[in-house]
Amino acid sequence: MPSWNDTGPKQAIMAFVDKVTSTGSPDYVPPAERIAVFDNDGTLWSEQPVYFQALFMFDRIRTLVPQHPEWQEQEPFASVLKGDTAAALAGGEHALLEMAMATHAGTTTDEFQAIVSDWLASARHPTTGRRYTEMVYQPMLELLQYLRANGFKTFIVSGGGIEFMRPWVYEIYGVPPEQVIGSSIKTRYELRDGKPVLVRLPEINFIDDKSDKPVGINQHIGRRPTMAFGNSDGDFQMLEWTTSGPGARFGLIVHHTDGDREWAYDRESHVGRLNRGLDEGPARGWTIVDMKKDWATIYP
Amino acid sequence: MPSWNDTGPKQAIMAFVDKVTSTGSPDYVPPAERIAVFDNDGTLWSEQPVYFQALFMFDRIRTLVPQHPEWQEQEPFASVLKGDTAAALAGGEHALLEMAMATHAGTTTDEFQAIVSDWLASARHPTTGRRYTEMVYQPMLELLQYLRANGFKTFIVSGGGIEFMRPWVYEIYGVPPEQVIGSSIKTRYELRDGKPVLVRLPEINFIDDKSDKPVGINQHIGRRPTMAFGNSDGDFQMLEWTTSGPGARFGLIVHHTDGDREWAYDRESHVGRLNRGLDEGPARGWTIVDMKKDWATIYP
Repeated sequence: MPSWNDTGPKQAIMAFVDKVTSTGSPDYVPPAERIAVFDNDGTLWSEQPVYFQALFMFDRIRTLVPQHPEWQEQEPFASVLKGDTAAALAGGEHALLEMAMATHAGTTTDEFQAIVSDWLASARHPTTGRRYTEMVYQPMLELLQYLRANGFKTFIVSGGGIEFMRPWVYEIYGVPPEQVIGSSIKTRYELRDGKPVLVRLPEINFIDDKSDKPVGINQHIGRRPTMAFGNSDGDFQMLEWTTSGPGARFGLIVHHTDGDREWAYDRESHVGRLNRGLDEGPARGWTIVDMKKDWATIYP
Repeated sequence: MPSWNDTGPKQAIMAFVDKVTSTGSPDYVPPAERIAVFDNDGTLWSEQPVYFQALFMFDRIRTLVPQHPEWQEQEPFASVLKGDTAAALAGGEHALLEMAMATHAGTTTDEFQAIVSDWLASARHPTTGRRYTEMVYQPMLELLQYLRANGFKTFIVSGGGIEFMRPWVYEIYGVPPEQVIGSSIKTRYELRDGKPVLVRLPEINFIDDKSDKPVGINQHIGRRPTMAFGNSDGDFQMLEWTTSGPGARFGLIVHHTDGDREWAYDRESHVGRLNRGLDEGPARGWTIVDMKKDWATIYP
């Protein structure tokens, strides 16, 4: 893991992996049970100024407006079209849900996959000018590889959309679609011209956040992870569930402390807010990564 | 696959696997995309006289009656306690749901896992006297191993309960819990004496059957399988979805034709009814296994 400085977090990770993979160790975990779960936004890639999926949503509103001329006058869409996304988000959860459904439902699963892939191939981050998939954390890419090389299955457990992540996470993180857990809308199986499709419906199926992260982990994985990695209080219960298990367990929080190379935020941030994890994490034995101090490189 | 006779189905399976795994073949499928999905009841183990999970449910009602004396007088429980399970099931979906919730909810996920494991360790099938896990199909065990040896990830996609299968399918089938898809009830994360648990709630989350099997496959796997194996019309859409994909795909139906060694049933059966698959399967290129003719051995 060359992009990690030789400080506490790297040492803690390597010592833990060593003790759970060494035959004869009292903490030995058989390969089939080596499960590591990772939050995505703020843990594997950046999440400022807002979650990248929200930026996708805003771009998609601009793309779809010719089919929805009424959006020019109708909030929260009108604010997005005027470039005032803060005003659009000021409508709270109801406004967010309305925009999410208008931009994420109504297509087949195959069509949506193509829409996400096309967007990622052309879109650029508003302040860095990088492609979004270039804003992943190099130390975490190395960690994912290191864990897989030690027999771990790596899973993503994100509040982001499961179908928003699947088209690209294998290429970027080496995580296959069947190891992605996320929020989802319902789908319906139907035949179109004799060919079956899955149609994305404007109805929430599951929100994979906070105390529902352990629920999602149980639904998809069916056993308690050995290691969990997060960055915000939305990951608190995932780390709590993981590290309360019997045997050796590991929890880690990425603390965004580097305002020069990335962003510095925690207790007051509107995305990735981190309070409880900072207050309680150390006493629970969780490792806290100080990005500025512990990471030699941020982006690839 | 020594328990398969050298007839059409075995030849079709081996020819298909050969063409999708041979480098340079026009039908080559990369290892990461080799996904095989298997129904469970009637495809990997027997399902007569009723689904084994229903027999678990009846046993559980008998176990729990001391805490529920009112069941002695209350249908459908009273009929189960009198040994008349046909009368109990005559109440239809409502009665079934009531019994399922009374026997499957109210515990933590860890407790339920122990209950299922304890039941399987002691329960015996009413007519064969075998343990339920000894009523799995030897040819299918060999097929699962053969596919994994050829780089396939094997998944179970069953109408049965996901938490009812997970405690034993790794040991019996070699399928890890994270590769099991099934029906489920909702769970809630909560702290008990400061320790987190997932509590099983008496509320349906997902019924993994018929046109919802492709929905479940998409939720959990996120891509279309290469091969699908079923035995009833509850598997029709899973096979349709799989074999409608681009590239080489394979569908197979196990037809229960052996009344001597197992059970013979299809179009009129109350479990595992098979009509449409027999009528349309061959024209769709699906392989039909005639258990009596194609399998040299049934049980291990």
